Amino acid sequence: MNLLLLDPHEVRDGRVVLRDARAHHLLTVLRVAVDQRVRVGLVDGPFGTATVIERREREVELQCHFEPGAPASPRIDLLLALPRPKVLQRLWAQLAALGVGRILLTNAGRVERNYFDTHALSPDVYRPLLIEGLQQARDTRVPIVTIHRRFRVLVEDDLDALAPDAARIVADPAAGTGLFDVASAREGRVLLAVGPEGGWNGFELALLERHGFERAALDHRALRSDTACIALLAVAHEALRRGQVRR
Amino acid sequence: MNLLLLDPHEVRDGRVVLRDARAHHLLTVLRVAVDQRVRVGLVDGPFGTATVIERREREVELQCHFEPGAPASPRIDLLLALPRPKVLQRLWAQLAALGVGRILLTNAGRVERNYFDTHALSPDVYRPLLIEGLQQARDTRVPIVTIHRRFRVLVEDDLDALAPDAARIVADPAAGTGLFDVASAREGRVLLAVGPEGGWNGFELALLERHGFERAALDHRALRSDTACIALLAVAHEALRRGQVRR
Repeated sequence: MNLLLLDPHEVRDGRVVLRDARAHHLLTVLRVAVDQRVRVGLVDGPFGTATVIERREREVELQCHFEPGAPASPRIDLLLALPRPKVLQRLWAQLAALGVGRILLTNAGRVERNYFDTHALSPDVYRPLLIEGLQQARDTRVPIVTIHRRFRVLVEDDLDALAPDAARIVADPAAGTGLFDVASAREGRVLLAVGPEGGWNGFELALLERHGFERAALDHRALRSDTACIALLAVAHEALRRGQVRR
Repeated sequence: MNLLLLDPHEVRDGRVVLRDARAHHLLTVLRVAVDQRVRVGLVDGPFGTATVIERREREVELQCHFEPGAPASPRIDLLLALPRPKVLQRLWAQLAALGVGRILLTNAGRVERNYFDTHALSPDVYRPLLIEGLQQARDTRVPIVTIHRRFRVLVEDDLDALAPDAARIVADPAAGTGLFDVASAREGRVLLAVGPEGGWNGFELALLERHGFERAALDHRALRSDTACIALLAVAHEALRRGQVRR
């Protein structure tokens, strides 16, 4: 844990008493002493510093001081064909750590129907994992997660409102254009579509293209969907950073 | 499975009879018929095409024809502080899929000693996982794995022989230079060092720098070591490809 994330509801007049896993981490891993300072952040809000006021057996009381302003939301939104539950469970923290503004989980021809029944799609399960990823990566912006059982409705009707003004890219190993080139040419936000194991089918790819998604490849190597997600996000973020530097 | 990998010892006069998981995959997933062709590769050797000669209940017989020449080894070697067993177990296939020539696993100050006792370090365990990653990514080059319990001996005495002529880069989130810039300026092979959860300690970083490793950062975000490995390899490969195109 590189940043202690606090929920706005927990903090009153800058004071917070922690009793959960975060208290345990402060007491047993960081072994904080009274007057010691730790880096904190407010969920979807600013960074800050907290001073340890009191430590009891399983409790830590902190006095927080937050900086003005909050970090910007990561510039990439992810449109992801729902991976199988075990993979998704592992991906939550990794996606939050790499930085995504939104995670739009969608059905697709090659997504098995029963994937939608998993408890990994419950906010009770994924929110703590997203927070874990943010605490690792030192960010406060929790990705906004939405679940879409009808791919066509999502793309045709909902996408303009969910990701307005975002440049649209669909990862496709068969594309002639490189993801890096496509992404580094963009200003503003990017919506990156990543297909299921086995890829989008022809209908889906055509629908995405008709709705403004540009096909772009990372490499000729075919990656498993979780590896692909991480690799694509890492390269797209790098391309956006470099595009920004050049301008 | 996007490529069926065969061991040279299995093939006699171009013929091979499969009875294991690969036969199962051919029979139940691909549902091959007699005379059907499948893409094959020879471990550490060429790609080729195999024609189904006969299919029995749990056996498939193939006649292979291999192309001349084998793919080049991936240009990146990885010097990785031994991750905890559960993480390592998951990484094997992903590293092979992303493409690495060598995987040098090393001890470090922040590596727990008992990590070396895991069965995930046994070739019986990791080789099938490496093969799985190659079959996914369509490559035949099995990463060469070596295990080094003494970091200092590895860096001072063994590294020149293990990775001769490779440009040396150590990933360090605190570095002022970007990994992309450092890697894209390189010709030939790159040896990329990735530290343990919590990072290399000061002694290790200094030793690496004294032995020619240049510090380079991916991003200011701190990533878990498995996420970091995948992100770093993806960006380094992209940088090498683009460096090559420019020259």
